[in-house]
Amino acid sequence: MADERNPWRRLSSRPIYENPWIRVREDQVIRPDGNPGIYGVVEIQNWAIGVVALAENGDTFLVGQYRYTLDLYSWEIPEGGGAKHETPLAAAQRELREEAGITAARWTYLGEVHLSNSVSDETGCVFLAEDLTYGEAEPDGTEELGLWRLPFAEAVQRALTGDISDSLAVIGLLRADHFLRSGRAWTPIERSFPGLGRPQP
Amino acid sequence: MADERNPWRRLSSRPIYENPWIRVREDQVIRPDGNPGIYGVVEIQNWAIGVVALAENGDTFLVGQYRYTLDLYSWEIPEGGGAKHETPLAAAQRELREEAGITAARWTYLGEVHLSNSVSDETGCVFLAEDLTYGEAEPDGTEELGLWRLPFAEAVQRALTGDISDSLAVIGLLRADHFLRSGRAWTPIERSFPGLGRPQP
Repeated sequence: MADERNPWRRLSSRPIYENPWIRVREDQVIRPDGNPGIYGVVEIQNWAIGVVALAENGDTFLVGQYRYTLDLYSWEIPEGGGAKHETPLAAAQRELREEAGITAARWTYLGEVHLSNSVSDETGCVFLAEDLTYGEAEPDGTEELGLWRLPFAEAVQRALTGDISDSLAVIGLLRADHFLRSGRAWTPIERSFPGLGRPQP
Repeated sequence: MADERNPWRRLSSRPIYENPWIRVREDQVIRPDGNPGIYGVVEIQNWAIGVVALAENGDTFLVGQYRYTLDLYSWEIPEGGGAKHETPLAAAQRELREEAGITAARWTYLGEVHLSNSVSDETGCVFLAEDLTYGEAEPDGTEELGLWRLPFAEAVQRALTGDISDSLAVIGLLRADHFLRSGRAWTPIERSFPGLGRPQP
């Protein structure tokens, strides 16, 4: 249907900046039209992991935090960075426990996402967590978190209108909504995270 | 419900890198827990604009392109950068025409999104375009695009499973699906793009 080969050619690559979360490089390239150009690429050091936690009564949980990059307060699903040496599921379980104080006995993988693919390689995935047990949250030093329990249907509505604007939260909530309404009828593909589509123990 | 004030304090800011698409800076900060730290912020120079185009027979249109950042071929809704001196609607109309050769008489705003808020300030919005007229695509020099006409319901399914993985495309398709199924019942908020929620001429 289309020529899916890489039409870009990389001539050279120069490291620009690195911290524990991102690496920035500038590549000299030949663009798809054959002309020379540059590409500034932001490499993200962790996976982006998001969790939609669903209580027995149909409530879900949002965490609120001030997003330094945007200078605004943002209500989101529990999220965090998954190190590349751990599994995304282990990271999801840790983030749900740290940010919301919740552990879950039933986990469903809801597929992957590329968050900002014109600029970065940031890759994430979202999970549905059910059969919940409640404890105490333990946010880390970069987080000062609010916790909000609300009906799942209301959270979905907020993801539709953009009141919830964080992309991973919007995708997690809308995929979870489809998954539950369809009678758990679809299975995500496993491009970056092989095995996650299988039922978890 | 939560203290929504900014718990971060910026002590200083150092420019790291700039090209026509991104600016990178490193800030010295006091973190929410009171300890000193750094924050590397990627500022995005354009809005991210995405368009779900819906034909009378229920088909939609995806454009395929090789994403240099991820080293993979990606099928997405027509998307592009909106300059901050033009309106997001004008950018959406241009991108749909350039990438898919389509003009639309009816436009609906489907709300905003923050694509990668732990790292960047990238802000986007999505539109539904209907009442379509077809012409010739005119991709720019950084793009070598495939065009795929397929049933809207199939595109939604691909956004659910992660076969379509680009976040702006996933959000555009899932919001459009909800909007159409709900009888056009909800109105997006207008935090970053005042006036876009009103019916367009």
